[in-house]
Amino acid sequence: MSSADIAREAAAKEAIKYVTDGAVVGVGTGSTAMVFLRELHRLISNGHVKDVLLVPTSTETEIEIINLGLAHLLRYPWQVNHIDVAVDGADEVDRNKNLVKGGGAALTREKIVDYWARSFVVIVDESKVFDKIPAKHPIPIEVIPFAWPIVKARLEEIGGVVNLRFGSGKRGPIVTDNGNYILDYVPKTEIVPDEAEGFIKRVPGVVEVGLFNGKRVSKVIIGRPNGSIITMD
Amino acid sequence: MSSADIAREAAAKEAIKYVTDGAVVGVGTGSTAMVFLRELHRLISNGHVKDVLLVPTSTETEIEIINLGLAHLLRYPWQVNHIDVAVDGADEVDRNKNLVKGGGAALTREKIVDYWARSFVVIVDESKVFDKIPAKHPIPIEVIPFAWPIVKARLEEIGGVVNLRFGSGKRGPIVTDNGNYILDYVPKTEIVPDEAEGFIKRVPGVVEVGLFNGKRVSKVIIGRPNGSIITMD
Repeated sequence: MSSADIAREAAAKEAIKYVTDGAVVGVGTGSTAMVFLRELHRLISNGHVKDVLLVPTSTETEIEIINLGLAHLLRYPWQVNHIDVAVDGADEVDRNKNLVKGGGAALTREKIVDYWARSFVVIVDESKVFDKIPAKHPIPIEVIPFAWPIVKARLEEIGGVVNLRFGSGKRGPIVTDNGNYILDYVPKTEIVPDEAEGFIKRVPGVVEVGLFNGKRVSKVIIGRPNGSIITMD
Repeated sequence: MSSADIAREAAAKEAIKYVTDGAVVGVGTGSTAMVFLRELHRLISNGHVKDVLLVPTSTETEIEIINLGLAHLLRYPWQVNHIDVAVDGADEVDRNKNLVKGGGAALTREKIVDYWARSFVVIVDESKVFDKIPAKHPIPIEVIPFAWPIVKARLEEIGGVVNLRFGSGKRGPIVTDNGNYILDYVPKTEIVPDEAEGFIKRVPGVVEVGLFNGKRVSKVIIGRPNGSIITMD
C-alpha cells in the first residue's frame, strides 16, 4: 500500500465508527469514499454492522454497491425518509471545513445527500488540506447544457477563467449522471466560499456548485501517511 | 504535420468535392471529420462554397461549428427536410465499406444523420482499413442506462466480452450526448456485420449499434501518408 492508501484507509476506518446498526448511510463518490464502502462491506459481511441501507451519490457508487453484492441494501433518496450519516471525500478542504468537490462530476447528487444527512463526515488524506480554497482545483459547476455559454460568460464577467469540461471515453463535453455539463471555474481573486457558493448557485442555468459550506460538515477526518488521523469538528 | 495528418487532410479535401453550393451537410464527429469541417470553413470563408447548412452529429461538432464562427449555418435535423451529403470518419472499415464507429460515443446521432443523407461519404486514413471488422476495436453499443446489465448479459450469452465504458472527466460510466451508456462488445467469434447490426439493434434496451452497413455508404475515401487517396465505391 502507498502512503496515500494508508492515509485513506485510516480515515475510512475512523468514519465507520459513525455508522450505527440500522443506519441509513449516504455513500460518497471517489477513491476515498470507495475505501470507506469496501470497509463497510467487510463489516456488514462479518456481521459487525447490521441492517444498514446505502444511498449512493453517483452511478459509480451505485455500481460498486451492486458489484460488492449489496444490491439488497441499495436505496434511492425517494425510498428513505432520512439519512443518518453521509461519508464522502473531497478535492480540497480549508481550516473551516469548507470543501471543493466535483472533480468526479458527482457534486450535485453528493450535495443533495450530504446536506440532507443528519451527520456529514468528510474523509480525506493530508494532501487535500489547504489554508484557502480553491487552491489547486477549479470550482466545478454543474450547468444545464442549454445555458453553458451564458453561465461561462457571466462568470468571466465577474473575473476568472471558465472551461467546459471534456474528458475521455466520449468526444465532446462530459455529461453528468444528471444529463448536464460541468464548467470548471478558476476565480481571478480570492473568494469567500459560502458567499461564492450562494452567488454562483443563483446564476440561471446553474444546477449546483462544487463549493460545500463548512457549517454543513459535521466532521473532517484527515488520514496521515503513518496511519494516524486528525479530526476537525 | 505527421503522416497521419497528411493522410486525413488528403481524404478531407477530396470529400469537399461532394459539397455543392446550397447543400445541407451532415458533419461527422472525431479528428478526421474535424479536418473536413475546418477545410469546409476555409472554403466558406473565401467564398468558394456558398449557402451551405451544417447539421452536426455530436455536441462536440456543434461546439466546433460555433467556435469557427459558423453558428448561423448550424441546423438540427428537425430544421431541415433532407441532408444532401454527410461526411464522417470511422474507427474501422472493411472491403465492403462496412464500418465500426462509436469510439467517440457519437454513433447514434452519426447513424441518424449519415443514413438519412442522400450521399454518405466516409473519410479515413489507411490505418483504419481491415479485411474483417471488428479488428482492433470493440463494437460500441449505446444502451438505455436502466437496461445495461441486461443487454450485457444477453450479449455475453451469445458469446464475447462486454464492458460498460468508463472514461475520464467524470467518475462512473460515461454518459452519451443522448443521456445513455456505452457497452463495448468484443464478440467471441467472427461476425457478419449487417446481420450483427440487425441482431444487436433488436435487443431491448439497445438504442443503436456502432456497426454501419457498407450498402449505406456511398464512398470511402482513404487518405495515404504521401497525400494521395484511394476510394471505394
